[in-house]
Amino acid sequence: MHALVERLYPLCRSITGDGVRATLDIVGEYIPLRVHEVPTGTQVLDWTVPQEWNIRDAYVADAAGDRVVDFRASSLHVLGYSLPVSRTMPLSELRAHLHTLPEQPSLVPYRTSYYKPDWGFCLAQETLDALPDGEYEVRIDSTLADGHLTYAEHVIPGQVPDEVIVSCHVCHPSLANDNLAGVAVATYLARALARTTPYYTYRFIFAPGTIGAITWLARNAERIDRVKHGLVLACAGDSGDLTYKRSRRGDAEIDRVLRHVLTASGRPHTVNEFTPYGYDERQYCSPGFDLGVGSLSRTPYAGYPEYHTSADDPDFVSPEAMADTLAVCREAFAVLDRNRTYTNLSPYGEPQLGRRGLYDALGGRSDTKQAQLAMLWVLSLSDGGHSLLDVAERSGLPFDAVAGAADALHGAGLIKA
Amino acid sequence: MHALVERLYPLCRSITGDGVRATLDIVGEYIPLRVHEVPTGTQVLDWTVPQEWNIRDAYVADAAGDRVVDFRASSLHVLGYSLPVSRTMPLSELRAHLHTLPEQPSLVPYRTSYYKPDWGFCLAQETLDALPDGEYEVRIDSTLADGHLTYAEHVIPGQVPDEVIVSCHVCHPSLANDNLAGVAVATYLARALARTTPYYTYRFIFAPGTIGAITWLARNAERIDRVKHGLVLACAGDSGDLTYKRSRRGDAEIDRVLRHVLTASGRPHTVNEFTPYGYDERQYCSPGFDLGVGSLSRTPYAGYPEYHTSADDPDFVSPEAMADTLAVCREAFAVLDRNRTYTNLSPYGEPQLGRRGLYDALGGRSDTKQAQLAMLWVLSLSDGGHSLLDVAERSGLPFDAVAGAADALHGAGLIKA
Amino acid sequence: MHALVERLYPLCRSITGDGVRATLDIVGEYIPLRVHEVPTGTQVLDWTVPQEWNIRDAYVADAAGDRVVDFRASSLHVLGYSLPVSRTMPLSELRAHLHTLPEQPSLVPYRTSYYKPDWGFCLAQETLDALPDGEYEVRIDSTLADGHLTYAEHVIPGQVPDEVIVSCHVCHPSLANDNLAGVAVATYLARALARTTPYYTYRFIFAPGTIGAITWLARNAERIDRVKHGLVLACAGDSGDLTYKRSRRGDAEIDRVLRHVLTASGRPHTVNEFTPYGYDERQYCSPGFDLGVGSLSRTPYAGYPEYHTSADDPDFVSPEAMADTLAVCREAFAVLDRNRTYTNLSPYGEPQLGRRGLYDALGGRSDTKQAQLAMLWVLSLSDGGHSLLDVAERSGLPFDAVAGAADALHGAGLIKA
Repeated sequence: MHALVERLYPLCRSITGDGVRATLDIVGEYIPLRVHEVPTGTQVLDWTVPQEWNIRDAYVADAAGDRVVDFRASSLHVLGYSLPVSRTMPLSELRAHLHTLPEQPSLVPYRTSYYKPDWGFCLAQETLDALPDGEYEVRIDSTLADGHLTYAEHVIPGQVPDEVIVSCHVCHPSLANDNLAGVAVATYLARALARTTPYYTYRFIFAPGTIGAITWLARNAERIDRVKHGLVLACAGDSGDLTYKRSRRGDAEIDRVLRHVLTASGRPHTVNEFTPYGYDERQYCSPGFDLGVGSLSRTPYAGYPEYHTSADDPDFVSPEAMADTLAVCREAFAVLDRNRTYTNLSPYGEPQLGRRGLYDALGGRSDTKQAQLAMLWVLSLSDGGHSLLDVAERSGLPFDAVAGAADALHGAGLIKA
Repeated sequence: MHALVERLYPLCRSITGDGVRATLDIVGEYIPLRVHEVPTGTQVLDWTVPQEWNIRDAYVADAAGDRVVDFRASSLHVLGYSLPVSRTMPLSELRAHLHTLPEQPSLVPYRTSYYKPDWGFCLAQETLDALPDGEYEVRIDSTLADGHLTYAEHVIPGQVPDEVIVSCHVCHPSLANDNLAGVAVATYLARALARTTPYYTYRFIFAPGTIGAITWLARNAERIDRVKHGLVLACAGDSGDLTYKRSRRGDAEIDRVLRHVLTASGRPHTVNEFTPYGYDERQYCSPGFDLGVGSLSRTPYAGYPEYHTSADDPDFVSPEAMADTLAVCREAFAVLDRNRTYTNLSPYGEPQLGRRGLYDALGGRSDTKQAQLAMLWVLSLSDGGHSLLDVAERSGLPFDAVAGAADALHGAGLIKA
Repeated sequence: MHALVERLYPLCRSITGDGVRATLDIVGEYIPLRVHEVPTGTQVLDWTVPQEWNIRDAYVADAAGDRVVDFRASSLHVLGYSLPVSRTMPLSELRAHLHTLPEQPSLVPYRTSYYKPDWGFCLAQETLDALPDGEYEVRIDSTLADGHLTYAEHVIPGQVPDEVIVSCHVCHPSLANDNLAGVAVATYLARALARTTPYYTYRFIFAPGTIGAITWLARNAERIDRVKHGLVLACAGDSGDLTYKRSRRGDAEIDRVLRHVLTASGRPHTVNEFTPYGYDERQYCSPGFDLGVGSLSRTPYAGYPEYHTSADDPDFVSPEAMADTLAVCREAFAVLDRNRTYTNLSPYGEPQLGRRGLYDALGGRSDTKQAQLAMLWVLSLSDGGHSLLDVAERSGLPFDAVAGAADALHGAGLIKA
């Protein structure tokens, strides 16, 4: 996964343009993608698909012709969606277009201006402080023109058309934790799931933040009812503990599954309530949709000093952290995928498990077995109102033991889904 | 407010009679009052309006003719609703009619006998202990006869006929915290509200305890449905921390508002569950009405040693404490009055705030603004099931910020009430 | 009660057979019992009544003819439901039929094989270790043949046909805490209740574990709706603190009553959530019935080292512990039996208690009386949605005071059941 992050890192992504396409091309080498191109001007919910932005070069050069700010060094150096410019101007005039982080003077900030026409450069405060007054050549070789918004999907068919969506944003340029780690974990999660025959259909969405999720929602309005659960992946690779942010519902099944898996695994972690800011869970959980979509991060949105700066580079994310995030996703989907609500077909008294070969025949042995306990719990709570996750949480037994007991009881015809 | 307390203090109030009328006359100098007179014998719910009691003078005089207990010194000296008496009797016979507080020997207790015909005097144990045996002249110049029960209302019309009632008792004689402080705070609260154009109609009720509230309820049966919220004010001026007692419902909007305001203000305070004793919240919250009426006090009912004694005098209440009680009432009604439940008219995805001038155009700035957060929260929770107070509590944002965001969104046509 | 335990202790009980009959004969000397005999082969819910097992003698004798394991010394020495056997075999072959507790080498375990045909002996590990190799005479003089399953009921008629069941198992052989203490407490509880005229009808069930409760449920399917509450008694005599295990519902009235009584009494105790293993609450609480049946024990099921061993003898249970268990049962049933939900017939404002002689006439006395508070609480909460137990818990008043207030108010015609 770290190699994928490193490969994607130099590309200049934005909410539209060839940087997104190049990103999806590379992801497409790992998992097959269906790429969608949505024309500029398309009405999507309350929004309109904007013009497409592309950039080839940009710099500020001093009187000697030396580039003192150079897009070729980092895609962060240009204000996202900058209009083209080619002028010479004194530093005093240029300053209004320069963005720095005075409190983190060695870092380059990440800035965009998608919806207000503007141009600008981002640079370290230290760099700015070292610039002598005088005339500078300012050049941004960009185009903002009718084109398309690009996003992609990867679908793993399940036994039922009900869907689980996994969504990550692909609109941030050279930032590693804040989007590339999520892209990498999603990609490898898709590869892992593709080797199974899951119960649910899993749909992976790689789309630019906000406008991309809104575009996807607008174009899938008629199938939204199929989306039963979902997870937004972001900030998936830093060294912090895992953080799960609940869906707006707060008690959706995905919320309960993540809490259970994080707790049962013994990992230090945090579970936060929903807030209407962050990543695209904002859109999936908007009150009209109100989907059961949570968000898994390590250190969450805006919670680390490297956030939205040049310090969020590939060194900031680790293979171990991404592997851990991936492992939790797999554990969570393993639970989600097996979590079913059964009805006991022999609910009056306990059914005689012994004659069905499901019970230790020699009564009174002190080593009561977890599998037998799990069967009793499943029988007791299978009244149509408790899922296997409910059984696991109420009994304190591992979900796997409970699901295994349910399989055995289902095989014996004692419960039905 | 303290001047009003001092002015009202000497009057001999009871559940009927000229003391109540004189009190309402004085309050009427501050705010216009509509005074109601309800004849003796009128059936009010399970009760009957009693005979009217008036008193001109009362004393116990020793053999030398000196008044050893004198109504002119304090209205507390006479058992409330004492029948007229004019006799001479030995101390030994008189004792059965003398009420003291043996454990607070310097204080005069407050006693009444509204519904059992009786007469008596209240005095300090020390005074009683100093009385020599012998004959005493005992005289109570009172009348108990058919007349009226008196109460008053002050109404501030609102934008809607839905009402908030503010109720305080006016039946206690020379006691400062236990009713006069509440009368004073209610009076000044009415004056403050009258300078606004509130959403709700505010009705202030000045009535004798129990029988007065019961009379008001009986005579307003057909309009009770309009009463949406209410607050009983009592013990409003002592130096203790504020105490809010919840309505019988426990989670009425007034309960949530008071808890929120007291907590948000940082004041030390206590919130108590409803109990079916105390002041007239007992009547408003009786199960047949079950109104959303709580009670605001400082040290609550019977919770201080000066309670129902001559020590509850104007020195026991302070201008600062009454001002603080008044301030909380105003803060609470400011929240209550603006607390509305909205519906997001653009609930599918976030509406594009930027093109409506509601969002900072330059993405990525680290100083996320409270106002923008508040708008996102209002949009997220405005599904018809969450009030602005819900939004404030769930978001942790100040109610004012949330209400301001709602105003902006309402102005932009994004939400409707 | 301890004498009853000692008398029942030597009998060899099992899920069928003459040991159960002899046990019920003795209990029948204390309280009249209706004994039921259900033929082998009868279908009961998912189960079938098994063949009846009886045993007269059993032993393992060494070459000298000395009994090294002897049923006459303890009924635990034979594996319950052992098939008849009469053979001589070397110790090496015999070992597969010998059951010990290697970690408690001086104790004899309790083992059964009801549904898998087998035979065997239980003995102390120390005894086994001392046996020399060689030939042993092995003899079990038992019969397993068509017959009956035996259980008994004792009914105390109440004012209503709604029933409270008290159930204990009678299938364990020489074990004192694990069934005889429960049998003794149930017997004396029935005697105590029979001296009263309870509101509910109380039905005591003495039946073999699992199959007995299932048989009772199967034969009483049409009257199950009458069972409103119930209690399973087991492990009722050891020196541990009391443990109440909630019904599957978790908040059934019996659950709330036991929690209230145990808490109010000040006894150290534990209240556990329902689990689908333990005693016959498993059957009564199976999801098809889901009765409000909890279980009262001292140290619960399998929670003490003497459990299911020869150390669970009459010395392990004490008269004091059984008396304490009995006292709690009586306190709990006293609450349950009086717990009613009333409706206030004068719910608009407080009714005037004074003119009905229910209220202290002299207002303002500082000694507010518990009885008056209790009346106000009952009036306030009697809206058809709160029981007297709710009133007691919400007011913090003793249940007896609340129930007494309800009686007074009922007598005055102010509330109706």
